[in-house]
Amino acid sequence: MRTIDWQDGHIVAIDQTRLPAELVVLHIHSVDELIDAIQRLAIRGAPALGVAGALGVALAGGDAELAAQLKSARPTAVNLAWGVDRVLARPDALLAEALATLEEDVRVNRALSQGGAEWLLDRVGSPIAVQTHCNAGALACVEWGTALGVVQSLHERGALGHVYVDETRPLLQGSRLTAWELAQLGIAHTVVADAAGPSVIARRLVNAVVVGADRIAANCDVVNKIGTYPLALAAQRAGIPFVVAAPESTIDMATPTGADVPIEVRDDAEVTRIGEWHVAPDDTAALNYAFDVTPSDLVTAIVTEARIIEPADL
Amino acid sequence: MRTIDWQDGHIVAIDQTRLPAELVVLHIHSVDELIDAIQRLAIRGAPALGVAGALGVALAGGDAELAAQLKSARPTAVNLAWGVDRVLARPDALLAEALATLEEDVRVNRALSQGGAEWLLDRVGSPIAVQTHCNAGALACVEWGTALGVVQSLHERGALGHVYVDETRPLLQGSRLTAWELAQLGIAHTVVADAAGPSVIARRLVNAVVVGADRIAANCDVVNKIGTYPLALAAQRAGIPFVVAAPESTIDMATPTGADVPIEVRDDAEVTRIGEWHVAPDDTAALNYAFDVTPSDLVTAIVTEARIIEPADL
Repeated sequence: MRTIDWQDGHIVAIDQTRLPAELVVLHIHSVDELIDAIQRLAIRGAPALGVAGALGVALAGGDAELAAQLKSARPTAVNLAWGVDRVLARPDALLAEALATLEEDVRVNRALSQGGAEWLLDRVGSPIAVQTHCNAGALACVEWGTALGVVQSLHERGALGHVYVDETRPLLQGSRLTAWELAQLGIAHTVVADAAGPSVIARRLVNAVVVGADRIAANCDVVNKIGTYPLALAAQRAGIPFVVAAPESTIDMATPTGADVPIEVRDDAEVTRIGEWHVAPDDTAALNYAFDVTPSDLVTAIVTEARIIEPADL
Repeated sequence: MRTIDWQDGHIVAIDQTRLPAELVVLHIHSVDELIDAIQRLAIRGAPALGVAGALGVALAGGDAELAAQLKSARPTAVNLAWGVDRVLARPDALLAEALATLEEDVRVNRALSQGGAEWLLDRVGSPIAVQTHCNAGALACVEWGTALGVVQSLHERGALGHVYVDETRPLLQGSRLTAWELAQLGIAHTVVADAAGPSVIARRLVNAVVVGADRIAANCDVVNKIGTYPLALAAQRAGIPFVVAAPESTIDMATPTGADVPIEVRDDAEVTRIGEWHVAPDDTAALNYAFDVTPSDLVTAIVTEARIIEPADL
């Protein structure tokens, strides 16, 4: 099934907080329910948020106030606002435009995955062993991933080596979601603690880093899940490519640099508790940035459905 | 109480796996029990392992075979072997030498803490906000820490800003142990996910990184808890000092470079399970390096009880 879809006049979506233990499908009938699902990360991933924004406006019948609330449910990924605005601009054809956004996600991600795989084969050669972070797979999109879409394209060409996945604390999207997806696809993979990702690179266990993005600024700074920046630093030092796979809708020309992107800070308890376990003494403060900024000089290539941007050439 | 001590003919030690929930004291009467405590990290931290090695030889009455088993209980920290060998070399005075090792740890760490604090005040000025990783505090030593000893010395001088602590997956020595120690000392601190440490540095929330070490090679490459290397990369990029606080006994002139240090790989389950929670699908493989290597060119200063080494000057 698709990660997010429109069915009988409402949104259906896989509840990503329940994986890998169980596959639970949410039926969402109101914008309030949708905002709740987005804020607790039952629906997550920049491309999926774009689609959620689009379908949400259809669900709201184009109501401007509900659309504004939805748009600000999470501040960092630009795709959410993009999806909302896109459908709001077509009051005559809300549902048609929302469904077009949904279908386009699949097409666009397949295209950028092919482009990314070809670029990597050209630059690195086969086999390509990949380090990735968080989840930029089908679970972050509709049915075809961005960074994991590139990985899957390499796999289909017989050019994929091993995949190393950062667990991605605090919410463990790597060990919970990416490992689950790769297992479904029959792709050999190993999970590492986030702290070990840069060592996997330094030890040459991989020859490329491929990640998604939540927002790409006009200067090509990349905002992505917290823990992306250390991989970019390590990739630069090791001299291997750091590749960002994302649709054009993730590029925000209205944001000059990464420093201009609002970085969501989430609840301390995501860090100080794991499940029911209090891992820090009571009253310990945590600073829980959800995203980090990778400066454009550390980015080897940004792969979209339309082009491959190499920031060093700009 | 001391983290590790000798009492009535046996070793007493705080069980570090039980903090911060409870303070449990282990009574260790045999080398087998000691090896078990070391391997499950109830006793941990390079300086404390040195003392454990020394006291263990006294417990074994100098038995060569038991000493050899103890020495190889964990491969990476050189202090364990150093403590064993030091006491084995004094068959006439095993207990006296072991107790001398114990007392020396306190003296030596106080001395290097003063030296480190002075060096930082000289280089950075006051106040100094510090990022640290894992636990290099009193709990890693006898009663006075190395990296956290430097932090405590800065605090006593009124020169300490805020302290940011990486949680240090997989075993969470940062959120469990360092946060606990800092709370006891009344030092303001915040825990972050390991993935966020480099962002704390990039955002200039700190102006120094101070960590301990498990082994320092002859060329000044530093082997320390996994996740240290990304902080060093980020510190270099931000232009802030990356300081390693460790006793001379951590320097291993017999090991030419970091690449020559055996890196312990621990059980997959430390990564794929957190407490009772299976965070990855069943059968997911993990690669669980316990340590990483920070190349000497990323190390601004190594502070010991005897000297301050600035690798760039060598």
